[in-house]
Amino acid sequence: MTQRSHTSEFYLISDAVGQLTVDLLKSVAVQFPGINIKTTTYPFVQHEDNLLPILEKAKQTGAHIVATFVKKELDQLANDYCQKNGIYYNNVLHPLIQLVSHDTQTSPDQKPGQRHLLNDQYYKRISALEFAVQNDDGRYPERFKEADIVLLGISRTSKTPLSIFLAFQGYKVANLPLVPEAKLPEEIFQVDTNKLIGLTNDIDILNKFRRERMRSYGVDEKGLYSDDNRIEKELQYANDVYERLQCPIINVAERSIEETATLILMFMNYLPTKGN
Amino acid sequence: MTQRSHTSEFYLISDAVGQLTVDLLKSVAVQFPGINIKTTTYPFVQHEDNLLPILEKAKQTGAHIVATFVKKELDQLANDYCQKNGIYYNNVLHPLIQLVSHDTQTSPDQKPGQRHLLNDQYYKRISALEFAVQNDDGRYPERFKEADIVLLGISRTSKTPLSIFLAFQGYKVANLPLVPEAKLPEEIFQVDTNKLIGLTNDIDILNKFRRERMRSYGVDEKGLYSDDNRIEKELQYANDVYERLQCPIINVAERSIEETATLILMFMNYLPTKGN
Repeated sequence: MTQRSHTSEFYLISDAVGQLTVDLLKSVAVQFPGINIKTTTYPFVQHEDNLLPILEKAKQTGAHIVATFVKKELDQLANDYCQKNGIYYNNVLHPLIQLVSHDTQTSPDQKPGQRHLLNDQYYKRISALEFAVQNDDGRYPERFKEADIVLLGISRTSKTPLSIFLAFQGYKVANLPLVPEAKLPEEIFQVDTNKLIGLTNDIDILNKFRRERMRSYGVDEKGLYSDDNRIEKELQYANDVYERLQCPIINVAERSIEETATLILMFMNYLPTKGN
Repeated sequence: MTQRSHTSEFYLISDAVGQLTVDLLKSVAVQFPGINIKTTTYPFVQHEDNLLPILEKAKQTGAHIVATFVKKELDQLANDYCQKNGIYYNNVLHPLIQLVSHDTQTSPDQKPGQRHLLNDQYYKRISALEFAVQNDDGRYPERFKEADIVLLGISRTSKTPLSIFLAFQGYKVANLPLVPEAKLPEEIFQVDTNKLIGLTNDIDILNKFRRERMRSYGVDEKGLYSDDNRIEKELQYANDVYERLQCPIINVAERSIEETATLILMFMNYLPTKGN
């Protein structure tokens, strides 16, 4: 009865942006490396007239449906249609909304797009993002004192993406590149040690990264920047700085930005006590 | 039997970062504005020894459990424990992993943290992020030609957060601030029109934003920058530029960054055909 196939197809429908379903399917897809998980996203579907053609198409193509509807009518319509036509349907918000409703004897708002509500928390996040962009690469040491987190590291220790990722979670992050030849700005010694994180990386990974970067710049890849001795010198210098500042050190090797960011938040006791 | 309560408590457990459960609970929480949805996150739970104490705590506190386990043993253990002790348990990945397994007659990898795998797509995203930070505020017009998207707009039209948000999805984004007194860089006229997006905003929102910004700078908030006539002049100038460049215009007023970003991708035909 079950035919082996190398493709699974999903329609991701939402009455808002639908980022949650995209992320969910990514998490599922990576568990099946040999399989083609085809996804098509349909954001801002807020009326029956827009929903029905998508359901009909799913019936024809055999696509499964994963949704984040907060509007009851849409959820009901999709659910009924899919049940009648043998289509897989999963509104990932539904069971949790039911649960909270039951706990609290309260009805949900049913307003789509509320996750991105333009409230204080939202503006805090936006201003954290702007702060991170402005304070990348140690541009304004005098603003270190405004930061929740200051990341330090030599070239290619993921300072920029980490700063941005943490900013997305509402933290104001500055970063300071470490270069043995440059003088450390005085301001770094005035920052609360608890706000400092020293980043490091494995020497072979740094070497590979840097060679690639030089190649992309069209420079001879065997230059000073990617030299093993040079990298060792930089790492040693960074370690000396971290010792002087007495800050924790995180090695970013073999860790994704998301993983390192989570580690940083755990280090700073922002997790798990703060559910963000 | 059901007692009315103003709190719902959740433990969010993952064998990886667990961002998905955090986002999911945010989406649920915003539907219940008067209710306190308390969440505690437990990332990187990869062994029974770490899982059991959390389950026991949930039993004591009456917390619900939402998880993203890809490891079968952990999912099974949590599921059994919760069923036996009357705890709500929802592994949001489980039904979809089952479905794809069934479709394709393939077993999942069960490797945690695979969403953030250090593969080509991951590095593409990181380099897009770095590109966006470097090319904020029109810093290098000569690099516009490398961008997938170039955003234009006067001050306070969300250019920076939009650039970063789109970069997170893997697009290389540059942005150019529009100021009537500044000469437009020649390079903007060499960019493919399909890559350009003109941002605009409502005059009263701009006024409010700018007054706040001036206040935060400690400057008299009734200065030129927040003057209605001045803003009108800037908006008119921007519209003239957009007409010359023949680029689409998106009004960011009353839209979150996520919503505007999704609109931009739809405009550029990156959505819904490209499921990202």
